[in-house]
Amino acid sequence: MSFMRLQEKINEFKNPSAVGLDPDLAHVPPEILKKHFKELGETLEAASLAVLEFNAGLIDALCDIVPAVKPQSAFYEALGPYGILALSKTIDYARSQGMYVILDGKRNDIGSTATAYSSAYLGTTKVGETEHIPFYTDALTINAYLGSDGIKPFIENAVKYDRAMFALVKTSNPSAGELQDKKIGDDTVYTTVGDLVESISLDTINKFGYTCVGAVTGATYPQEIDFLRKRLKHTFFLVPGYGAQGGSAADTAFAFDEHGHGAVVNSSRGIIAAWKKRGGDYATAAREEAVLMRDELRKVLKN
Amino acid sequence: MSFMRLQEKINEFKNPSAVGLDPDLAHVPPEILKKHFKELGETLEAASLAVLEFNAGLIDALCDIVPAVKPQSAFYEALGPYGILALSKTIDYARSQGMYVILDGKRNDIGSTATAYSSAYLGTTKVGETEHIPFYTDALTINAYLGSDGIKPFIENAVKYDRAMFALVKTSNPSAGELQDKKIGDDTVYTTVGDLVESISLDTINKFGYTCVGAVTGATYPQEIDFLRKRLKHTFFLVPGYGAQGGSAADTAFAFDEHGHGAVVNSSRGIIAAWKKRGGDYATAAREEAVLMRDELRKVLKN
Repeated sequence: MSFMRLQEKINEFKNPSAVGLDPDLAHVPPEILKKHFKELGETLEAASLAVLEFNAGLIDALCDIVPAVKPQSAFYEALGPYGILALSKTIDYARSQGMYVILDGKRNDIGSTATAYSSAYLGTTKVGETEHIPFYTDALTINAYLGSDGIKPFIENAVKYDRAMFALVKTSNPSAGELQDKKIGDDTVYTTVGDLVESISLDTINKFGYTCVGAVTGATYPQEIDFLRKRLKHTFFLVPGYGAQGGSAADTAFAFDEHGHGAVVNSSRGIIAAWKKRGGDYATAAREEAVLMRDELRKVLKN
Repeated sequence: MSFMRLQEKINEFKNPSAVGLDPDLAHVPPEILKKHFKELGETLEAASLAVLEFNAGLIDALCDIVPAVKPQSAFYEALGPYGILALSKTIDYARSQGMYVILDGKRNDIGSTATAYSSAYLGTTKVGETEHIPFYTDALTINAYLGSDGIKPFIENAVKYDRAMFALVKTSNPSAGELQDKKIGDDTVYTTVGDLVESISLDTINKFGYTCVGAVTGATYPQEIDFLRKRLKHTFFLVPGYGAQGGSAADTAFAFDEHGHGAVVNSSRGIIAAWKKRGGDYATAAREEAVLMRDELRKVLKN
């Protein structure tokens, strides 16, 4: 439990990285889109099938070297119900190829509604007497603005079904600080959220020392990662913002503990749209870029 | 723009309320579930069709007296891809019956991802040269923890396509204060978010005086609503927590301006599961309860 499978997979591949499956249609090679347009016209269904084909090619190209994928729910939702079907199939295919799946949905709510989100992504839904798994993800990103009521229903399923979550603490965007950096006494909004996230899950610590509630800490704010790593000793970090958003391997180094554990670094566009820069086959381009990223991360983790 | 259609509909019906379509399967009458189980077994597809039938009955029973519905995305996501199809059809049916549709999704992200969420719910997605509307909602709830980067892409489409949004400011749950009430200088986290929400959208004010970025302010915290109404003169309020969560009509009165404008009050379980308390047909029970709520709100708005 509690990110153990993720950490073991990271250790096996000596690669603490995740690839963001954020299929903006501009990242999907035109020949894949055209093929599906020919069959179904310029429809959301055709686009969804193109995305699914694109993702499957990426997963095949990456699954023996990259431990995790992070599909970004927004890009599938932007394709309507067919997009959600493509998301569901992408999740299942990635898992079937042994990858750890972090759904980036930033879900948040309270009470019975938070329980419904938890059922959707980390648990089961009972229909009559039959239990179903709506979306079989390994972990989900959540937003903790609503406090502990909004986190507990996710923890419940994470413990029960061996899943995990990452709560937004310090995000990678330029305006993150407008709220997150505001001072609360000697602390800030983001450290207050970080403290909540760690304290609420201390009874779920795994053998590597981490709970089932991780934190999102953007690569674009390395000082803050350093500060948070020292403060939240039991919180696994998801570090977005590597590559296209400007975060370097050295910036992410602060996210790891002295054993090189406790964090996974995500790159999306930099990998999945590498074909635009490198030319050639998109899957090969993605693999080459993923190897570069892995090697960069290995370098900083040695120091 | 900017909630004008909602305010006009509220004025027409003299009823500032919304009904939450939160179809926890426990709220769906057993005879509807059984009918679909008979055909498709205890599947997520059967449950989704039952939810759609239930919602259509509620919409038919309410659309001439209640101006708005607020489907809660979580309950549809908990039914997997079929659930999202039911959500999409529910949205379309409610709009076809003249209702204003607020999708409660509490979405949040940054940059191109926030743009994708905005396309999904408030805008369009371009597939090749063809534009599609993925989910045709009137308004979406969002979470502003990521700052202005996370709000602007929604405003852009709201202005372009005559839509709107509500950002979480002070939520209705017991633990809302764990973060939201924390002091930032003389202010709090929630007033800081409220100020951001209003200031970022001042150039979208409509003839009633409201911008396209509303605020969620829970009925369970009437003092805070009072305080926020005086502070955020141009921010339309969505007030959840009426009824089952404990908020009364008197508690919500603070949300309205001196003309009785500027807010919509939501009840979910109290209306859609009224059949459990009242017996008889679920649609009739929902209508009777919605009339009661309307009359309660009318009473406090007269004072």
